[in-house]
Amino acid sequence: MKRIFLLITLLSSINSFSQTDEQVIREIYTQSLTNGKSYEWLDHLSNQIGGRLSGSLNAEKAVAYTKAELEKLGLDKVWLQSVMVPKWVRGAKEFAYIETAPSGFGTKKTTNVNICALGGSIATPAMGLKANIVEVKNFEELEVLGKENIEGKIVFYNRPMQPDVISTFEAYGGCVNQRYMGAVEAAKYGAVGVIVRSMNLRLDDLPHTGSMTYDDLPVNKRIPSAAISTNDAELLSSMLKLDKSLKFYFKQNCKQLDDVLSHNVIGEITGSEFPNEYIIVGGHLDSWDLGDGSHDDGAGVVQSMDVLRLLKESGIKPKRSIRVVLFMNEENGLRGGNKYAEVAKQKGENHIFALESDAGGFTPRGFSFDCNDASFNQILSWKPLFKPYFIHYFERGGSGADVGPLKSSTNVLAGLRPDSQRYFDHHHAANDTFEHVNKRELELGAATMTSLIYLFDKYGVNPISNDEQIKD
Amino acid sequence: MKRIFLLITLLSSINSFSQTDEQVIREIYTQSLTNGKSYEWLDHLSNQIGGRLSGSLNAEKAVAYTKAELEKLGLDKVWLQSVMVPKWVRGAKEFAYIETAPSGFGTKKTTNVNICALGGSIATPAMGLKANIVEVKNFEELEVLGKENIEGKIVFYNRPMQPDVISTFEAYGGCVNQRYMGAVEAAKYGAVGVIVRSMNLRLDDLPHTGSMTYDDLPVNKRIPSAAISTNDAELLSSMLKLDKSLKFYFKQNCKQLDDVLSHNVIGEITGSEFPNEYIIVGGHLDSWDLGDGSHDDGAGVVQSMDVLRLLKESGIKPKRSIRVVLFMNEENGLRGGNKYAEVAKQKGENHIFALESDAGGFTPRGFSFDCNDASFNQILSWKPLFKPYFIHYFERGGSGADVGPLKSSTNVLAGLRPDSQRYFDHHHAANDTFEHVNKRELELGAATMTSLIYLFDKYGVNPISNDEQIKD
Repeated sequence: MKRIFLLITLLSSINSFSQTDEQVIREIYTQSLTNGKSYEWLDHLSNQIGGRLSGSLNAEKAVAYTKAELEKLGLDKVWLQSVMVPKWVRGAKEFAYIETAPSGFGTKKTTNVNICALGGSIATPAMGLKANIVEVKNFEELEVLGKENIEGKIVFYNRPMQPDVISTFEAYGGCVNQRYMGAVEAAKYGAVGVIVRSMNLRLDDLPHTGSMTYDDLPVNKRIPSAAISTNDAELLSSMLKLDKSLKFYFKQNCKQLDDVLSHNVIGEITGSEFPNEYIIVGGHLDSWDLGDGSHDDGAGVVQSMDVLRLLKESGIKPKRSIRVVLFMNEENGLRGGNKYAEVAKQKGENHIFALESDAGGFTPRGFSFDCNDASFNQILSWKPLFKPYFIHYFERGGSGADVGPLKSSTNVLAGLRPDSQRYFDHHHAANDTFEHVNKRELELGAATMTSLIYLFDKYGVNPISNDEQIKD
Repeated sequence: MKRIFLLITLLSSINSFSQTDEQVIREIYTQSLTNGKSYEWLDHLSNQIGGRLSGSLNAEKAVAYTKAELEKLGLDKVWLQSVMVPKWVRGAKEFAYIETAPSGFGTKKTTNVNICALGGSIATPAMGLKANIVEVKNFEELEVLGKENIEGKIVFYNRPMQPDVISTFEAYGGCVNQRYMGAVEAAKYGAVGVIVRSMNLRLDDLPHTGSMTYDDLPVNKRIPSAAISTNDAELLSSMLKLDKSLKFYFKQNCKQLDDVLSHNVIGEITGSEFPNEYIIVGGHLDSWDLGDGSHDDGAGVVQSMDVLRLLKESGIKPKRSIRVVLFMNEENGLRGGNKYAEVAKQKGENHIFALESDAGGFTPRGFSFDCNDASFNQILSWKPLFKPYFIHYFERGGSGADVGPLKSSTNVLAGLRPDSQRYFDHHHAANDTFEHVNKRELELGAATMTSLIYLFDKYGVNPISNDEQIKD
């Protein structure tokens, strides 16, 4: 009997490093695809709560809901972390039209177009704003035109996302300064308003909102800024080619209120061996208000919640402390991400690894990593474990806005990289809704994240020492 | 002057093998993403023509439309290849319900469910068919139940696609014998009809059709066969658990008519150096009738058409003869694929490479290859060229049904492998429609296919000889 026991022990220990990891990861994927909770949670967040702009009632509902759901999971701790957030409200729906004077007698002709205020913008005057409009592709063109051609006019930024850039995030990066800094730049030349082509690779009728800044512009220099749908940007541009003297009218009713109290939601499984080494996984709980924020970033929220649940369901007892962090206010302030890092620093918490999912709930392709060479080599050694799941993208690059403030010289930050070809069809627009998230793709993402968290928990952030290899 | 010319010549020749290929492939992607025609063609095929079942008027419209469009491209030849195809018609929409007798007095209760006839099935009797129904998961269960439990009843095959299988095509492969052979197997035990759970990973209300066979069953032994939606399969299963004596009623009006004349559509750019070496790219022009066949296989058709156009637009003059072949009757007969191979054999045409796109118009991930070791090693050497486009999947495996008959010991067959996590949500169902195909993803697929065709044209199918390296 004893001999049989010894034989079993021996056989178990022969079980190589990679075999065991393969089995654990297979179990994680099976759990997520047959017993996942992410889709059910997303249904609630999207369809029972809806858009969750920082400071809104819905954002607070989302805090309460996710906290309650995390409490059901039997984690070691669940708590709220207070953070003051900006509160910007859209008010009544925006309205805009292009006005052309017909040649000869007759009345003026107006054509309605689809716009939405940019997050952080001021309202137009109560009667709306009507002015000539001048189209530019970039800030250099503004400079060439100068004050004499811009003063008193609306500036129309119409540089499209480049379709031939394969990474849609890179194409977005090539355009988004128009939206974020457009008002500051246009105001220098006396512009009275800003209309920005929506950051969307498709031609459709939906305006896409997003954050903008006034930087240090004095209040009396601030000008209202809105996004226009890509179809209407094309229309406006073609009409301007025929008639430079046409007028653009828009009215928006948004307002920046005082900051209000909100919360990050945090849950923790405390580590059994190294409780003072923290690994976090998260997404952001706030969203824009036009859709229900299913891809941005309901998906990341529910996937992150399911990471901790899937670890438990797969029978994994973490050695390190694993936290899910649902950040508040990524979209228009990053207050939650900054607060989390500030508190972590105050407490001297050693965050060895942080993973963010904030690129949509599409089929996962891999991760991008912000780390040193040694860590990246360690990560690359895990790549074969992911091949059966078609996870192939392991590259260095950015991680995520919320986890960024945790950066140190030794830790690893990472971002989930789903297929993002359709992401900007929905990003910050009214069609970022639940029916555009596929259950199976969402669950594959949650499993992929859980598998990486499992590996970081097991092996830590440094290259594997002989001790660790023997121990496992 | 002469020295400068020499210097330029020298610099050009330093331009390494991979540099040049990188530039060409970059140009192909740019062309497809900024100047592609695939989406416009798909819009017409889907929205102006619609579902294209073999032998239907729509199928002939699709033949005429694609031939006319290919003729506009300035190819060297465009022609139709005659092929006789089966003609099966659905007739009036199907109708089905579950009937339970309430305990005690009262009337029978009926619950309508969503079904559709399987392609190739006979109709029910004109009054419909009502019988007890017995649920099984596989053919082995049929054998255990035996004739005494099956005779006179409807057999309900309810083995779901396995959600934890990562490749959805593999999950499909694990279920589809219920649909294809279900009637033959059930008829052995005296069953009077077959109801099959739809091949769909989602729970929804759409029945998914697809081909079935009666093999060599005599006409009087054939039994009507239909697919039921996944939601209704779940409902029926749960009702059967409560009441094994419930009855199932269905009525369908389909009919197999005589074969009719149809066509493959073929276009060719004749090779400048090796015109007798043929490379083909194709998809299938026919589709099922419930949706408009946008993913299956309108996408493959328009991508294949665009391959030849993109080669021209990118300034590539093929050394070998490149053909686009739009096959008729992949879905319920494969007559087009067989005919093309038969004619190629008669003419002694040397088909060195054949690529099929028939797995949906989703983001491309790579290819699977049916070839010998030497060819596969050659293909793997090209893999780095595709990395900038996130194309990573280069594996051995099946190619495509239509190109399969061209297989030889030396040639290479391949299938485009798009992301297929959502494919079976739409496959053979009423929601296989244009709005579920994303323009950008479709165009990325066309560019990926064109790039591979470019490489096979340039290097041929055998490992690169020193001669070829010097020549290029």
